[in-house]
Formats: sequence, C-alpha cells, structure tokens
Amino acid sequence: MALKVYGISKSTCTTRVLTCLGEKGVEFELVPVNMSVGEHKQPAFISKNPFGQIPALEDGELTLFESRAITRYIATKHKDQGTDLLKLDDLKESAAVNAWLEAEAHHYNPAISPIVYQRMVIPVFYNGTPDEKIIEAHVEKLNKVLDVYEEKLSKTKYLAGDFFSLADLHHLPYTFYLMQTPEAKLIESRPHVKAWWEDISSRPAFKKVAEGMK
Amino acid sequence: MALKVYGISKSTCTTRVLTCLGEKGVEFELVPVNMSVGEHKQPAFISKNPFGQIPALEDGELTLFESRAITRYIATKHKDQGTDLLKLDDLKESAAVNAWLEAEAHHYNPAISPIVYQRMVIPVFYNGTPDEKIIEAHVEKLNKVLDVYEEKLSKTKYLAGDFFSLADLHHLPYTFYLMQTPEAKLIESRPHVKAWWEDISSRPAFKKVAEGMK
Repeated sequence: MALKVYGISKSTCTTRVLTCLGEKGVEFELVPVNMSVGEHKQPAFISKNPFGQIPALEDGELTLFESRAITRYIATKHKDQGTDLLKLDDLKESAAVNAWLEAEAHHYNPAISPIVYQRMVIPVFYNGTPDEKIIEAHVEKLNKVLDVYEEKLSKTKYLAGDFFSLADLHHLPYTFYLMQTPEAKLIESRPHVKAWWEDISSRPAFKKVAEGMK
Repeated sequence: MALKVYGISKSTCTTRVLTCLGEKGVEFELVPVNMSVGEHKQPAFISKNPFGQIPALEDGELTLFESRAITRYIATKHKDQGTDLLKLDDLKESAAVNAWLEAEAHHYNPAISPIVYQRMVIPVFYNGTPDEKIIEAHVEKLNKVLDVYEEKLSKTKYLAGDFFSLADLHHLPYTFYLMQTPEAKLIESRPHVKAWWEDISSRPAFKKVAEGMK
C-alpha cells in the first residue's frame, strides 16, 4: 500500500514532503484536503494532525504530522535509497545538516513566510492588499539571514557542506514563491545564494513538484 | 577534553543544552559569553555560531550551533548512555518524538517566548514595562497549543508516548520562566499539562540546571 500524504499541491509544507519523497524515489498518493470547507479542522483530520494543519502522513499504521518531522521520517526509513539527505552514517555531517535544518526553521522561515503570505496569499485568496510595513520588517530580517547564508555558501556549495541535504531541501517551497515577488532581488543580488538557489531548484524532484505549485 | 558549551546559565537555549547533557550524564565545561559587551557578535564567536546567538558547542574539532541541533547531536552521539531521548532504535517512536519536537519549535515556542520576554526580560534587563497587548495575543495562541497538549497528555504520560523524550525536555526552559509569571495559570488550569510539567521539571537533570536560572 502506497504511503499517503494528506495535503494540497500548492502548500509550502506539503511540497516540502513531496520533494523529499521525490528525492528518495518513494511512491505515494496525495490525498487532497478541502480546506475551503474546513476539512482540516474536522475530527477525521485532527486524528492525523492534532493542530489541524496540512500535511499529515499515513504509512501503514503510522500517522505523522509536521512537515519537517515527516521528511526526517522518510529520509530515515529510506536511508539507503535515493539521495542521502541526513548523512546518518556520519556524526559530524549529520550534526551540520541538523544545525542548518534549525537555521531554516528558526531564522529563514520566520523571515520569509510573512513576505510570501502578504505578496501571494493575501491578494490571491483574500482579494486583499499586502501590508507593506510587514513586508519591510521581514525583508530586514531576511536580509540579515541571507547575509549569513551568502558567507556560508561562499565556503561550501550547500548549507551543511559540499553535499545537497535535507537542510537545503527545506528551503525550496517558500523560496520558490518568493522568486515570484519583487523580493526575489534578495536572492538575486547575492551571487552565492543565487547560484545555490538555481542549483537546488533545478533538481528533478523539485522541478516536478514545482509544476503543481503554479 | 570536556565538551564546551558557550552560553550563560540563565539563557533558555543554553539550559536546553545543559539539561540534555545532564540527562545523558555527559561532562562539560560552561564557557560564559559576555553578552553585555557584545562578545557574541565578535568574530571569535561568529566562527562558532554564524547567527551570533548563544549557545554554541565545541566537542573536540566539531563546532555546532542552534540549541536543538546540539541536543540532537548529544543524544545521538551518546545514544547508549543515560536517558534514551530520541528512541533512535524504533522508527515509529522516533517519528513521534520528532513530530513533538517540531510542535515545540513551531507551535509552543512562538507562543510562549514573547510572553516570557515581556514579563521577565523587559522589566529585568531593560527596566521597561511589559506590553500587555503582545502578552494577550500570545496567551491566546498558547491557550490553543495547550488545549492540544492537554488532549494528548490525557492519552499518554509524555508528549511522544509513555516515555520521557527530547520533545518534553525542549519545553523545560521557557515553561520554567512562564511559571514565575501570572500566566502560570495557563499550565496550572489544565490537569494533564500540570501533572506533566510537575513530572518533567522535577527530574534531577533539570532541577540542577534550574538552580542556575534563578
């Protein structure tokens, strides 16, 4: 029985999981969640994710929530197939992967997600106008984070070292949407960040997922 | 050579690491960082943590940043001594630990940390007055998160199951400070959350660390 991902193809957190499955060559079924009628807040979905957010995973009898826990589970269970995303056999390399996974979670994501929300979600889903003050405040934060990334990527090809890892992969969905906004310049103006973005976003697993994000 | 933790004993992120070291029975040296003179923004420290934040770890030739990556490293390296914090030998249990680690990072921490900042940091370090609007907004968020925790903890003794794990441990530092504010009632009013808090905060490893947090 194929593993089931409950989510939608335009969701950043869902696509984080789908890209990981693609890198590992794991078959799956994407089960759509109808968020417009609040399906994610109903008991059937809450039993899969108590916070009522997409995605959720079902793998046989295991159910799991939080996209970053799901990718870690997939990368661990299928350690020996596809791309080696966690470097579990090397304590030093895996420690570096984990540090940059946390950098994405605690520095990059809090800075980039409100920009994408204002630029892409507010106008498209709520027919509203982006709040430029929120964007400005988060551009300032993202600039600081990207200065650190630029320095790191001038020394190693990817965030955790000279190998593509889950830490790079986790950056893909939000950056994909950022690149469709005027704030794409934050990436484009930094040569090493730009080269890194062009590299990781052109990997076949993500290119396939990105088709569904348009 | 003992492992070195660069940080301070009152910092939530530093104590997260120190508690983990205590649970694993790993010896360490705490190297104080003088933040009042900006030592954490100087090149010597930036080489350890590019974001210029405490803590950082030195273990022989390895340097590492981000408290949650450091605890994962310690729990992995010393897997077979002290408390089994990650359940690495059981795919299903480790997946549950990871889901609740992400819950702490993406639900609990963003809700609780601004409350603790307003109630404890602003008056003590900046001689300022807490912003009650910020507190109110985050109390609302924390209430929702704690409702999910209360439900989960009515079914299992700890977050990931009937075993204490790194997911529980990561909640200790911020909750310790919350319990010294009027918002302690958010914990005390929920019987299962309260029992869980009393249990995890009375573990010897944390009690020792908490002495330095006062």
